[in-house]
Amino acid sequence: MASRTPSVAPRSEDQQSGAERAPRRRLSVDERREQLIAVALELFSNHAPEDVSIDDIAAAAGASRPLVYHYFPGKQALYEESLRRAGEELSGRFEEPAEGPLSERLLRVMGRYLDFVQSHAAGFTALLRGGSVVAGPNAGAVIDQVRLAAAEQILHHLDLPEPSPALRRTVRAWIANAEISSLDWLADRSVPAEELQLQLVQELVAALAVTASREPALAAQLTGFFAAENPDGPSALLLRDLMGLLHTPGLGDSLLRLATP
Amino acid sequence: MASRTPSVAPRSEDQQSGAERAPRRRLSVDERREQLIAVALELFSNHAPEDVSIDDIAAAAGASRPLVYHYFPGKQALYEESLRRAGEELSGRFEEPAEGPLSERLLRVMGRYLDFVQSHAAGFTALLRGGSVVAGPNAGAVIDQVRLAAAEQILHHLDLPEPSPALRRTVRAWIANAEISSLDWLADRSVPAEELQLQLVQELVAALAVTASREPALAAQLTGFFAAENPDGPSALLLRDLMGLLHTPGLGDSLLRLATP
Repeated sequence: MASRTPSVAPRSEDQQSGAERAPRRRLSVDERREQLIAVALELFSNHAPEDVSIDDIAAAAGASRPLVYHYFPGKQALYEESLRRAGEELSGRFEEPAEGPLSERLLRVMGRYLDFVQSHAAGFTALLRGGSVVAGPNAGAVIDQVRLAAAEQILHHLDLPEPSPALRRTVRAWIANAEISSLDWLADRSVPAEELQLQLVQELVAALAVTASREPALAAQLTGFFAAENPDGPSALLLRDLMGLLHTPGLGDSLLRLATP
Repeated sequence: MASRTPSVAPRSEDQQSGAERAPRRRLSVDERREQLIAVALELFSNHAPEDVSIDDIAAAAGASRPLVYHYFPGKQALYEESLRRAGEELSGRFEEPAEGPLSERLLRVMGRYLDFVQSHAAGFTALLRGGSVVAGPNAGAVIDQVRLAAAEQILHHLDLPEPSPALRRTVRAWIANAEISSLDWLADRSVPAEELQLQLVQELVAALAVTASREPALAAQLTGFFAAENPDGPSALLLRDLMGLLHTPGLGDSLLRLATP
């Protein structure tokens, strides 16, 4: 591999990229590396990795092909670094102050999540649909880290001293639901983002209620959570929609019959 | 690749495998091929693919290593054929007569699914946890086919003329839940199989109810389904557990407040 001193970079590339901007200065080694990663991340977000070449990255960075190779051994390395950065950014979006109704915190997190999904649509789809050779063996580890960060944030907000295996399972299954639903949504956009955002939050609330109905200790813990929910918040809207099922002709009778032995 | 006439197979392997059985006869080409696949499937079910060698397969089949190579170009090919067979077998287990309460049909299907998961534990885990090089590029297609077969069976039982995108999303997300929950369960066995079996069915019922609460047309379709449920069936038990939340001190009041604007 070539040395990392920036002096070997051909001058022409800097002149090319800075043509429209003035005054301009030569990028430092670190700045150039970051710029290449930023450009690669942008390209890998909007195209399947197979459809992005080193030439595309060089052109978008206003750099020469040899300059890109001077910083990275090849496309795979640039993809992996982009993926690592994207994973860190996504994990960062899960962080939310532990204040206010829980479902509304989740709603904000899911808003940021779906923004991320939209702005990285092609890369997100290619990565999670799998089958890409470019993704390489390290892609799975990045995905797992993001899933773990998501699960830890949710468990942190639920504020339980020791989450049960059933609760952990509920949270992991819901994270898979969020992934699958986002992939579906990117493919067909059959509902507005705000609707999916609300639905996913409500689906976690429903799944938590089902799990709590089997675990009295969890039900007790969720008492404070439901007490803080707003009358026009996601949980209230869900409960009212569910109450609506009781008014569906024939269905209400069956549900009441089954609920009361 | 070698010719497929069985005459090139060394005699010694047949003598070896049949040593304890008598009377015995020489396996035909098709029989031998099926036997090798059956042996490979058994080994790949109980070990990660990395931990199974052609020698292991030959030994378990009472065959020589050259004989195995006579039928299959290598371990990858035997793994892929085993995986394809396992996928077909699992898909077959989803088939269930469209008779009786829906949740009880699902309960039977999930019983067969969890039996399969248990009897293929190591292979199931290695495949779905991913990261195995042996799994190869075709493994994803087999997994997708099984998921599709599962979704189609569920939609078939729901008996809707045209399932909505939201319903399809609900079903796919629940299939992911079943996979994740089985992987968790294989790893820690924190609950008996029967409990997970019931919980997964109830989680689909709950997810369908949430989706129906947003789609009056689906709610109307589910009316017949709930009318046929038994008072001691999975849906009734779920509803009664959920009613129990109303009796959790503090929680019932919050839920009633939120449900009634």
